[in-house]
Amino acid sequence: MRILVIGANGFLGSHLVDAFSALGHEVTAFDRFLRQAPRFDPTKAAVFKGDFLDNRDLARAVAGQDEVFHFLSATTPITAQHDPTIDVRVNITQSIQLFAECARARVKRIHFASTGGAVYGVSAKAPLIEDRSPQPKSPYAIGKLALEHYLEYFRLEAGLDYRVLRISNPYGPRQAPDRSQGLIPIALRRILSGQPLTQFGDGSMVRDFIYVEDLTRMIRDTLEREGRHRTYNLGSGVGTSVSEVFALLRDITGRDFAVVRRSAPATFVNRAVLDISRFTADFGEPSIRSLREGIQRTWDELNGAKCTTGSEPGRSLFPALRPT
Amino acid sequence: MRILVIGANGFLGSHLVDAFSALGHEVTAFDRFLRQAPRFDPTKAAVFKGDFLDNRDLARAVAGQDEVFHFLSATTPITAQHDPTIDVRVNITQSIQLFAECARARVKRIHFASTGGAVYGVSAKAPLIEDRSPQPKSPYAIGKLALEHYLEYFRLEAGLDYRVLRISNPYGPRQAPDRSQGLIPIALRRILSGQPLTQFGDGSMVRDFIYVEDLTRMIRDTLEREGRHRTYNLGSGVGTSVSEVFALLRDITGRDFAVVRRSAPATFVNRAVLDISRFTADFGEPSIRSLREGIQRTWDELNGAKCTTGSEPGRSLFPALRPT
Repeated sequence: MRILVIGANGFLGSHLVDAFSALGHEVTAFDRFLRQAPRFDPTKAAVFKGDFLDNRDLARAVAGQDEVFHFLSATTPITAQHDPTIDVRVNITQSIQLFAECARARVKRIHFASTGGAVYGVSAKAPLIEDRSPQPKSPYAIGKLALEHYLEYFRLEAGLDYRVLRISNPYGPRQAPDRSQGLIPIALRRILSGQPLTQFGDGSMVRDFIYVEDLTRMIRDTLEREGRHRTYNLGSGVGTSVSEVFALLRDITGRDFAVVRRSAPATFVNRAVLDISRFTADFGEPSIRSLREGIQRTWDELNGAKCTTGSEPGRSLFPALRPT
Repeated sequence: MRILVIGANGFLGSHLVDAFSALGHEVTAFDRFLRQAPRFDPTKAAVFKGDFLDNRDLARAVAGQDEVFHFLSATTPITAQHDPTIDVRVNITQSIQLFAECARARVKRIHFASTGGAVYGVSAKAPLIEDRSPQPKSPYAIGKLALEHYLEYFRLEAGLDYRVLRISNPYGPRQAPDRSQGLIPIALRRILSGQPLTQFGDGSMVRDFIYVEDLTRMIRDTLEREGRHRTYNLGSGVGTSVSEVFALLRDITGRDFAVVRRSAPATFVNRAVLDISRFTADFGEPSIRSLREGIQRTWDELNGAKCTTGSEPGRSLFPALRPT
């Protein structure tokens, strides 16, 4: 099938491009490619250099596509926190525009990368199932939820089918450590350069970390097989506290590091562990790497191992760390 | 106390200005006043001619206020339907700006006019209570819900207290019949001029109509007395079908009229009747006029009766209908 990946040179997007190409699909990789060469294998996918903010680029990109993966976000939870209208002005407005273009082009289905933990917005230990009433507390999560609602609107109004993928905390190769999202790659980079780590709160904050290749396989399953739902939690289903992550980091890297404590913003969710039983029921038990193994692989690759999936042998997975 | 009403010359806003002035509060009436003179009594309130889209106007208006009522909407359910990004680009962005200005100015509380029926977005007969999980299906309702979430964000982040008023279908004097919102005033105007009425669907669509003076009294109660919640449904709690409304209209006006049927948009909710027991528990049983009496009063006033609350004796409540 013909698949468009929006945000194709991002962390998750680039893995999707490679995974879908490997399955023999006709993949178009949409991105600005502003700062770097393709991080996916550009010999297997059509590269579309386009601007998400340009409506004509969007219209040209979606024309003739069967499935569209919207994995681009101009903001992170942190940048959205700094300017609470940026999500609205950029992400929400332009994503709606993308949905409208998909509906107009009669795209079969759009797959939207939503947020797993933040959208539920609760600290209770109750399982985070998809039917739970969302209570987003941060601009980032509010924007994601509003876009989920807009997808339902375009389905009802224009017949555009969709999948909402509520993703927990992915980590692993190609996660840009220079951005403010991703505890594990940021921590590994700082350990490598001997800097202290920042810890929000007392270390008891629990997250659901998932290795990017495991996540990519789950997304592939939701594409290739039929499911009975439109919204799926995608995560490991396992909770790990920040303190536990830090202990693992010390163990795996063999280095000690200082920890600078900062108070957690009031909008931070204390515990976000997804219940993935809906995914398991519809697509089978996912294969999930242990956090120890995933961090070990990420650390190995950060230390100069070759890129296993990219097209440029020897190119670091963390280009920002290397002199260019 | 010092009260700012944003959208003060609108249907609900103008009634709030008069009601709060009558209680002895210092009211500032914020509006563009583009097309007409104040519809409230301008001798009892300070008139602030300002543009909701101008951040400096907002900052100047909220300075020194205790309570801010945000009753301005640049869109209606119909206009939002025609351009699904207009809510995002105008209402949502600028309302967030207003919330931020309120937080900065240490306003005590902001009161936000949300939507009662549309936000729940379900057709089931189950009671629409405030804790029900919202499922907005229209851009109008999606925008209102996102703003409710932003209010919670500003409370957590900046300590700004708020009230969300989920209002059903208000009707009565001063409701501009030239806009596309408000079944009853639009119908009365068309009956007066001998035009056919438009009916979406088969007439079984049920709404919760509330006479504007009854609603204003309910809002006044939520301001003057303590409540245990931040979100309240405000409506009559009584459901009336479009067919029943049309029968009442024939009866009250003594005129027959043709009905043009159009299919209802997929995003229309079939039944929206609010459960107002939370309001009743916290503020006492509201006094609600019968729909027959309310329509009768609206019809009488449309036919030239004097404005009972305005300052310009004899001025029509429906200025758009009168030659100027």
